[in-house]
Amino acid sequence: MVQNKSVIFLNHPTGFPVVGQDFAVQSRELEVNLQPNDVLVKNLYISLDPYMRGRMSSHKSYVAGFEIGKPMLASGVSEVIESKNASFPVGTIVTGFVGWEEYSVISGAQDLRPLPDARNSKIPLSSYVGVLGMPGLTAYSSLKVIGQPKAGETIFISAASGAVGQLVGQIAKRQGLRVVGSAGSDDKVEYLLKELKFDAAFNYKTGSILESLKKHIPEGIDIYYENVGGETLEAVLEVMNTNGRIIACGMISQYNATSPYGVKNLMQFVSKRLMMRGFIVFDFAEECSADFAKDVGTWLVKGEIIYKEDVAEGIDSAPDAFIGMLKGKNFGKQVVKIADL
Amino acid sequence: MVQNKSVIFLNHPTGFPVVGQDFAVQSRELEVNLQPNDVLVKNLYISLDPYMRGRMSSHKSYVAGFEIGKPMLASGVSEVIESKNASFPVGTIVTGFVGWEEYSVISGAQDLRPLPDARNSKIPLSSYVGVLGMPGLTAYSSLKVIGQPKAGETIFISAASGAVGQLVGQIAKRQGLRVVGSAGSDDKVEYLLKELKFDAAFNYKTGSILESLKKHIPEGIDIYYENVGGETLEAVLEVMNTNGRIIACGMISQYNATSPYGVKNLMQFVSKRLMMRGFIVFDFAEECSADFAKDVGTWLVKGEIIYKEDVAEGIDSAPDAFIGMLKGKNFGKQVVKIADL
Repeated sequence: MVQNKSVIFLNHPTGFPVVGQDFAVQSRELEVNLQPNDVLVKNLYISLDPYMRGRMSSHKSYVAGFEIGKPMLASGVSEVIESKNASFPVGTIVTGFVGWEEYSVISGAQDLRPLPDARNSKIPLSSYVGVLGMPGLTAYSSLKVIGQPKAGETIFISAASGAVGQLVGQIAKRQGLRVVGSAGSDDKVEYLLKELKFDAAFNYKTGSILESLKKHIPEGIDIYYENVGGETLEAVLEVMNTNGRIIACGMISQYNATSPYGVKNLMQFVSKRLMMRGFIVFDFAEECSADFAKDVGTWLVKGEIIYKEDVAEGIDSAPDAFIGMLKGKNFGKQVVKIADL
Repeated sequence: MVQNKSVIFLNHPTGFPVVGQDFAVQSRELEVNLQPNDVLVKNLYISLDPYMRGRMSSHKSYVAGFEIGKPMLASGVSEVIESKNASFPVGTIVTGFVGWEEYSVISGAQDLRPLPDARNSKIPLSSYVGVLGMPGLTAYSSLKVIGQPKAGETIFISAASGAVGQLVGQIAKRQGLRVVGSAGSDDKVEYLLKELKFDAAFNYKTGSILESLKKHIPEGIDIYYENVGGETLEAVLEVMNTNGRIIACGMISQYNATSPYGVKNLMQFVSKRLMMRGFIVFDFAEECSADFAKDVGTWLVKGEIIYKEDVAEGIDSAPDAFIGMLKGKNFGKQVVKIADL
């Protein structure tokens, strides 16, 4: 038995999730009775991502819903502290799906991946659920496969300082595109311009999105990296170029909307021959994982790309950090630091 | 000089075009002063297609707008009656872009294609602007390239008895798909079921579109052939299957809408990993033209596919026929018969 603080899923939310009603931190005793191949891990970091709002919904989605009464799930970086699995001896640093909790028993070490270089790396451990993890692979693979970027084109990225957007922008920049982003505060806009070297950026909360797009992208958009949906998508459709591609990564403005926004100009798909495609990271994992690890790993170590994280401290902070992220309060990739190595 | 009745474009319409205000039949004298390579043609049939509403608009579109004060343009089947072009001697039957008019001078015989078999064929001349023309190639190529149909999948087609829809349905049926369509009258629905052998069909005007889709397609939609947009698209998104493809051929419900419909559930693109793509027929012409001519030509001669046309008689009938088509009053592909061979 170990005492284990977890974030338990309580109820399918309507609108923004409410702490105490829809999910809550609870301290429970964890029974550790490892069977052959099981491991007990101490969770160091978990990743909070917008798609998790979908797993809280009662609607069918591309990922299974969270189970009521059980801990919510996230990708994490963890340390094996008890093991009946020879491939994962005690002390191994791993990444995989764990609970939003201090300790998890992973049956059969399922889907865990060892990170042999992690313990002595210059790269922070949290990177393995961020720029080197699913958000990073999401950015890298979808830009390549769906976006098919060509030097000289213009890409517009919404939620551009977020987990995926900041990497998309930096990769596109390396490939010779003109890169423009939107974000929800002046600080974030300054970060896009000064740190990430975007060609242009604007705060979508101040002024008309359509006017901002026209001002900053007079040449029109060839690729739209879609993270927000709703009004932004409608404005983007007006200034897309013929044969433009829309990478539908997320539509965070709609996840908690009790009256979703009606997009009125889908005719642009016909008149401009546009393409929009949704995906999940696993769609392209086989095709892109090796190149991703090599490219992004190298760029990161050389300092050629940077990656901002917003670190919430302690499992107790996870529910509020999650709601904050859904409201755009995070600045950079949202993670929760649960424990030191 | 020949006396020439033409449909002249007068004004960019708001909402449905109005005869007399936005376009009108006028009789003018046509000066026939052929230069080398020019031909004079007598137009036999012209094709009326929904995309032409876009050419009447003042907005930028994928095709150039019609010119105010000039005849509207259409693809036609015509007979060369005067020629300074050795490749197009008098008597040649041709297809290409002509005016909505009795006679056209085609400078340099530009983009005309001779139809050497047309004069003695069992296939009606009007087919060359329908099932064997652009609407046919549109159906054949976009279903193949964007839809990527697989036997056992389900396709749903809106405006299914129209110029493109009826062919899409029959091709999909031959490829082993379950084929379901919607149309705007009980007659059309009966035609889909009885003549075209659709697996199911419904009248979208009677009852909720979403309920009809759920009733007739409990297995969900893998491919949506989109001709209408708006409310139908919104309902379809609810019942699309994961990894579904949407072939955005047209959105006729929106062409004349002064308040376009807002589609509220685009989140489905993310959660179901959907793809939607607009196109024009020329995008796939090179890739598909040869197979199209061979396949559809063979099926048509063998009677393995059928193709319903709605024939308006005489150039005077063209404006009303066009408006009727935009309102869904046509039953089958809308053509205008201008003259006998």
